Amino acid sequence: MKISILKNELNESIQHVSKAISSRTTIPILTGIKLEVTHQGVTLTASDTDISIQSFIPTEDENQQIVQVDRPGSVVLPAKFFVEIIKKLPSKEIQMEVKEGFHTFISSGATEIQMVGLDPEEFPVLPNIEGNETISLPGDLLKNMIKQTAFSISTQETTPILTGILWNLAEGEFKFIATDRHRLATRAAKLEGTEDVKFSNVVIAGKTLNELSKIIPDQNMLIDIVVADNQVLFKLDRVLFYTRILDGVYPDTSRIIPTVYKTELTLETKKLSESIDRAYLLSREEKTNIVRLQTLEQGGIEISSSSSELGKVREELDLIDFKGEPLKISFNSKYMLDVLKVIDSEQLTIAFTGMMSPIILKPLDESQALYVILPYRTTN
Amino acid sequence: MKISILKNELNESIQHVSKAISSRTTIPILTGIKLEVTHQGVTLTASDTDISIQSFIPTEDENQQIVQVDRPGSVVLPAKFFVEIIKKLPSKEIQMEVKEGFHTFISSGATEIQMVGLDPEEFPVLPNIEGNETISLPGDLLKNMIKQTAFSISTQETTPILTGILWNLAEGEFKFIATDRHRLATRAAKLEGTEDVKFSNVVIAGKTLNELSKIIPDQNMLIDIVVADNQVLFKLDRVLFYTRILDGVYPDTSRIIPTVYKTELTLETKKLSESIDRAYLLSREEKTNIVRLQTLEQGGIEISSSSSELGKVREELDLIDFKGEPLKISFNSKYMLDVLKVIDSEQLTIAFTGMMSPIILKPLDESQALYVILPYRTTN
Repeated sequence: MKISILKNELNESIQHVSKAISSRTTIPILTGIKLEVTHQGVTLTASDTDISIQSFIPTEDENQQIVQVDRPGSVVLPAKFFVEIIKKLPSKEIQMEVKEGFHTFISSGATEIQMVGLDPEEFPVLPNIEGNETISLPGDLLKNMIKQTAFSISTQETTPILTGILWNLAEGEFKFIATDRHRLATRAAKLEGTEDVKFSNVVIAGKTLNELSKIIPDQNMLIDIVVADNQVLFKLDRVLFYTRILDGVYPDTSRIIPTVYKTELTLETKKLSESIDRAYLLSREEKTNIVRLQTLEQGGIEISSSSSELGKVREELDLIDFKGEPLKISFNSKYMLDVLKVIDSEQLTIAFTGMMSPIILKPLDESQALYVILPYRTTN
Repeated sequence: MKISILKNELNESIQHVSKAISSRTTIPILTGIKLEVTHQGVTLTASDTDISIQSFIPTEDENQQIVQVDRPGSVVLPAKFFVEIIKKLPSKEIQMEVKEGFHTFISSGATEIQMVGLDPEEFPVLPNIEGNETISLPGDLLKNMIKQTAFSISTQETTPILTGILWNLAEGEFKFIATDRHRLATRAAKLEGTEDVKFSNVVIAGKTLNELSKIIPDQNMLIDIVVADNQVLFKLDRVLFYTRILDGVYPDTSRIIPTVYKTELTLETKKLSESIDRAYLLSREEKTNIVRLQTLEQGGIEISSSSSELGKVREELDLIDFKGEPLKISFNSKYMLDVLKVIDSEQLTIAFTGMMSPIILKPLDESQALYVILPYRTTN
């Protein structure tokens, strides 16, 4: 293998695949990045067995030469050092040559590096899951669906299935669900052209989807998703992102979402968020995060919290709309703030079925999102 | 005490004094911020016994009313909650009133807060050290002198005196010295009008001076420094910053700075820094940080490092000037990078007296700075 390559392009690809490098792996070959050079370009691959990322650099793009291939070939290079040194090389061009025993020579400007490479034959082969059902959605929508549900996953490794986000697709509706048993987030979107595709109980680690979010480009391009038996593949332009589907059956969450409400309040998201944030500051000192919300006789609501040591916070907020009965309820303000932070809609409706029943939050926009917070007794 | 005050001004003062609040104190009154209101304005004070910071908010500034004083008085408020809630209040004006038993009522917009206040009589009285010797220097210069020496202090609590920066003033020259026994940094500046002032063995915690740096405003104003027996006071516009002088005698460091050199190299700071940074990346993996520097027969120098597991880095650098004998030396590249990071000068001279002797770095500017790195055998 012998090439000359532009530093920025190589570096960008390295940044993409490096998200799949585990610092804790005990398998030496997985501490490396695999480079494969053909006359079409350079493919970089990294894998931590749960996720694998592949990034392709073509020899030419928009009439600019990116890679000059003198000799195809492949090698696995130590990821941590490779990632850091490429960024810091002095010239915008880099020469690489793999010699006897996978010894790799890298030069750029007056800098010469010898790297101990590993045999690419030892690197795990990525699954071939092309040919399975494929759906497409815009990158921004996928990022949003992840952001608006991932915060509700469980961080407890005792229930691994709840550390994932559940995906269902039926009748053209793609739906994400996440819950840690104290709160639940759902977000759905209509996907055109997927009316014939159907899957359920596809659960992907929330952590993995957050990593995926980081490499989805800002340009709002379409992302292809291939769902196979135990793997999902995301195709982003020149990046392939493979992740495994979590084992197990996701619990049925449909029954914890009430459908009849006693009280419905419509408010401005930002004002409610700021108000609860102030009450949260005090409730946090009590370690409980309990904040109280009550409707006022003269209209509007009161948000309050107190701490025996520090004092009290109390404030009134106007309502845009009020339906149903007066209400007094306590909840975990941290959970409420987590929801308010990811809602893009300027207004939302909070719905209640009673003091000891779940609280529902619904943004007043097209996101088809719905959030449930269990009342205080269950979150302690 | 009853006032109405602008949020931004109160918040700025809180940010200044909050640097003196220790989260680890066991003395309840020191977890608070003291507010004292007179008809002149509001004074905020915080103290962790090592440092005390006082910030004054005048009732008027540039014809704008900042504070309206309805009733003078004072109170101590719980710092952590006070610091965070003030920032987040909804209106730009804040009303505060202290009632019976130091119960404090704060309101802003529709937000009402009750805070449990403490008796200000319990708050420690700051030392009166006015009347001692005072020197003045520009804020930028003081910040620079701190930045260019503080990185060399010891972090080992076993030699407390070396966690400080030594100050000497004699014959109009103000000098900072810091050492952790492996390296040394000195920085001096001529101060006009201080020819009659003299002090030595004034040692101030490096950590404290770094905190001070953060509140020195960007406008390059003069800072007055009052040096008393066991305290130093910094006067910055409306902020007073008190710190204690560390106990003990700072070791004599004059003998470890060589004055005759065998080899002197002059280079571009940025190029040397980038080159050593690349070699450091590899040396770091070996935990030793050892990088080699050697002069080349054909001119220039070679910077290199190697790791048995990962490989080698090697590069050549041009010299602007070369005096003396050829040379080959190993050093701790982390220490060298720390120096190169704080040097503002575009060029520097590195001077050597031999393989096992200290390395000297001198920026080619007016900073009168000098850095010493002991060679490798002593840093292990």
